[in-house]
Amino acid sequence: MTKQSFLLLLFCIIIILGVRAQETDSLMIRKIYDEALTNGKSYELLGQLCNEIGSRLSGSPEADRAVEWARMAMQSLGLGTVYLQEVMVPHWVRGDKEVGKIISSKTLVLKELPVCALGGSIGTGKDGIIGNVIEVYQFEELEKLGREKIEGNIVFYNRPMDPKYISTFDAYSKAVGQRWAGAIRASKYGAVGVIVRSLTLKLDDFPHTGSMGYRDTVKKIPAAAISTKGADFLSKRLKVDRALKFHLKMNCETLPEKKSYNVIAEMKGSEFPDEIIVVGGHLDSWDMGDGAHDDGAGCVQSIEVLRIFRALNIKPKRTIRAVMFMNEENGLKGAKKYAEEAKLKKEKHIAAIESDAGAFSPRGFGIETDDSLKLAKILEWKSLFAPYGLHEIGIGYGGADISKLKDQNVVLIGLRPDSQRYFDYHHADSDTFDKINKRELELGGAAMAALVYLLSEHGLK
Amino acid sequence: MTKQSFLLLLFCIIIILGVRAQETDSLMIRKIYDEALTNGKSYELLGQLCNEIGSRLSGSPEADRAVEWARMAMQSLGLGTVYLQEVMVPHWVRGDKEVGKIISSKTLVLKELPVCALGGSIGTGKDGIIGNVIEVYQFEELEKLGREKIEGNIVFYNRPMDPKYISTFDAYSKAVGQRWAGAIRASKYGAVGVIVRSLTLKLDDFPHTGSMGYRDTVKKIPAAAISTKGADFLSKRLKVDRALKFHLKMNCETLPEKKSYNVIAEMKGSEFPDEIIVVGGHLDSWDMGDGAHDDGAGCVQSIEVLRIFRALNIKPKRTIRAVMFMNEENGLKGAKKYAEEAKLKKEKHIAAIESDAGAFSPRGFGIETDDSLKLAKILEWKSLFAPYGLHEIGIGYGGADISKLKDQNVVLIGLRPDSQRYFDYHHADSDTFDKINKRELELGGAAMAALVYLLSEHGLK
Repeated sequence: MTKQSFLLLLFCIIIILGVRAQETDSLMIRKIYDEALTNGKSYELLGQLCNEIGSRLSGSPEADRAVEWARMAMQSLGLGTVYLQEVMVPHWVRGDKEVGKIISSKTLVLKELPVCALGGSIGTGKDGIIGNVIEVYQFEELEKLGREKIEGNIVFYNRPMDPKYISTFDAYSKAVGQRWAGAIRASKYGAVGVIVRSLTLKLDDFPHTGSMGYRDTVKKIPAAAISTKGADFLSKRLKVDRALKFHLKMNCETLPEKKSYNVIAEMKGSEFPDEIIVVGGHLDSWDMGDGAHDDGAGCVQSIEVLRIFRALNIKPKRTIRAVMFMNEENGLKGAKKYAEEAKLKKEKHIAAIESDAGAFSPRGFGIETDDSLKLAKILEWKSLFAPYGLHEIGIGYGGADISKLKDQNVVLIGLRPDSQRYFDYHHADSDTFDKINKRELELGGAAMAALVYLLSEHGLK
Repeated sequence: MTKQSFLLLLFCIIIILGVRAQETDSLMIRKIYDEALTNGKSYELLGQLCNEIGSRLSGSPEADRAVEWARMAMQSLGLGTVYLQEVMVPHWVRGDKEVGKIISSKTLVLKELPVCALGGSIGTGKDGIIGNVIEVYQFEELEKLGREKIEGNIVFYNRPMDPKYISTFDAYSKAVGQRWAGAIRASKYGAVGVIVRSLTLKLDDFPHTGSMGYRDTVKKIPAAAISTKGADFLSKRLKVDRALKFHLKMNCETLPEKKSYNVIAEMKGSEFPDEIIVVGGHLDSWDMGDGAHDDGAGCVQSIEVLRIFRALNIKPKRTIRAVMFMNEENGLKGAKKYAEEAKLKKEKHIAAIESDAGAFSPRGFGIETDDSLKLAKILEWKSLFAPYGLHEIGIGYGGADISKLKDQNVVLIGLRPDSQRYFDYHHADSDTFDKINKRELELGGAAMAALVYLLSEHGLK
């Protein structure tokens, strides 16, 4: 055999083996989807979490019950070693139902609007706060108005999410600043409180909570969300009665930290047990609705990944961990703890996948890495996902819980579901189990399982 | 200039012009989406149609009102010439609420199950029909059971839609035979009636109607749908009590044909007025729910296409017609009429786009044509749709209403929304306006408008 012929033969063998490998992968992915769509357990599990426990803010008794539920669920499904990872978490409580009222300047007629405290806010005191309403759309307007106009009043941030973005997450990220930093910015000019338009594109009566911050150098003032319909109403009233007042009453408060846990199930790798793949979601939720989309879905999908491996008797080459992180919503303490421990133990995580964008029809994965070779390797798998409707696989956001692993050279991957409906329910009383479509939830879990399978089989080198 | 240089220059000019054209198209498509997402009228229109008129089966007073509503809506929006196209349609009426009961063989205890007549079925007579229940999953089983087992009894078709299909339309098409031909097949063996498992992947208490057929050579027997939970219950009971009976009562009937209309709005083309592009949906619906997804959505999206053109002051080069077809559900009489008239008038339709798969997040277009050059031309536009999440553009199904244009050499195109939730509501009381997400509806309309724009600008040659 000439050297040329030999090289040609070698080339052919490599191609054939490559095609075979893709064929094997393709068949296994089909099996994974079949299992998810015919025997899936994620919907039933999410029903338990939402209907039997409900919302589960860090530090709450419900969060404790959710930890126990997750451990039991994974143990009873026989998903490898199940253990808890202790972590101290913030403990903020909403207190009584908040009251927000418009008081017209002349007739003194009251109209109640749907409001809720933003997570982390201080309370208003027993009598509440009352003040004129200064409506703004941008932080820059505060500077122009100055202390003279703002002092003693309530700042009303009314910038809507921009409907022109196709991904609602883009619209959210452009508008979330007023929720997070609104109290800090307004307090600098002497505001006594802030009310923030809810971050949703839907016009309805649900106020949407979410985390807000304070700064030690600035006086803390109460911050509440107002429903989008409420915000529109208030804005309209202000146009005819600029002297109207708003009365806000809430007795939320921050209590001492509490002990809680990440819940982890681990399936040991058969060939490369030291290489770890994480798949996860967060177990905590805000204290409104039942945390169905945010992020019960991500938890049960992660459990489902391991369940599918077990049901199909797939022995993963690399170690797979399903991690239910605690405290994503107001502190990321679970995420930090997990990453710290991983560093301490010198664990080698090759990839971490997070589902925290709702149980909607999956459309792809966002990939966060500086390593273009690893990115290229994942992109080679694109065609394997196309038959399942996942086309948007490329550079993108991983997720908050896994973000703390970034400096350990871990490829971060976020499941990317269709985003249109997510903010309809996000952090609101409407995020309940009846908003979950069983198949959409299952397709998300199957997509994650397929990706975990590829990562476990082929690694990322 | 040498000949080579000249050719190179020419080549460069062509490339530059091509890129410019795509850039112009891309900018216009962005404008179309911006208009749809900020000033869209489709959601409001669909609210009117669903909440003020509701379901609108061909021949019903509600269908008459829907015709008038569609005409008024398009006229008041100033969408070119609006006119009606007369067509005779079937007139089937459901009558009183149907009753379906299990009667246990020993205790004679009754349990009512949710049933509804299939569209086109005859009634059962005043006393209803009663018989033993013969459960089958495939037509082949009838042959095996034979007249001996079937005669005088009720055949229960209980084949579920297969959850393994990623597109639920594939699952539907594999299961719809038992609904359409179930009565014909069972009657051949002497069955007195049939009950058919509802065609949905969701387990719930809604029976789903839909069209069924008879054959002149076979005795007509009544046919009803039973909810998926009802079907599962009945199947379980049959395992312990094979002698149980089912009692079905319904007084549906077919009345003489009635006059109705397709409703059409036409925007004349400025350069090629003889080349026509149709965009449409069907105005009729089944007489359950409000026909929100099926197919109020397609109608308001088609209206929205013309509204966007008008709002952006786009003068289409080719003629665009928004067509609300009558009688898709049980006869396709409107579709046939439209195609006949087009042929009679020697109109030249270049393409017809139909939206009849629900108001869900759009994922692409299915294209039906034998002309590979035309297909290739449309596929060249794929990259223009990718930023809007439409990746599934390729050979596929156009739609029932436009199908009658096929033999006139028209490229048929179906909007392809995400299919996961469609059959949850299809032909059932649950197909109501509250199941519509405003943005998903608007994105569908925008996708159609963008495609109509490209077709109108560039034609299909």
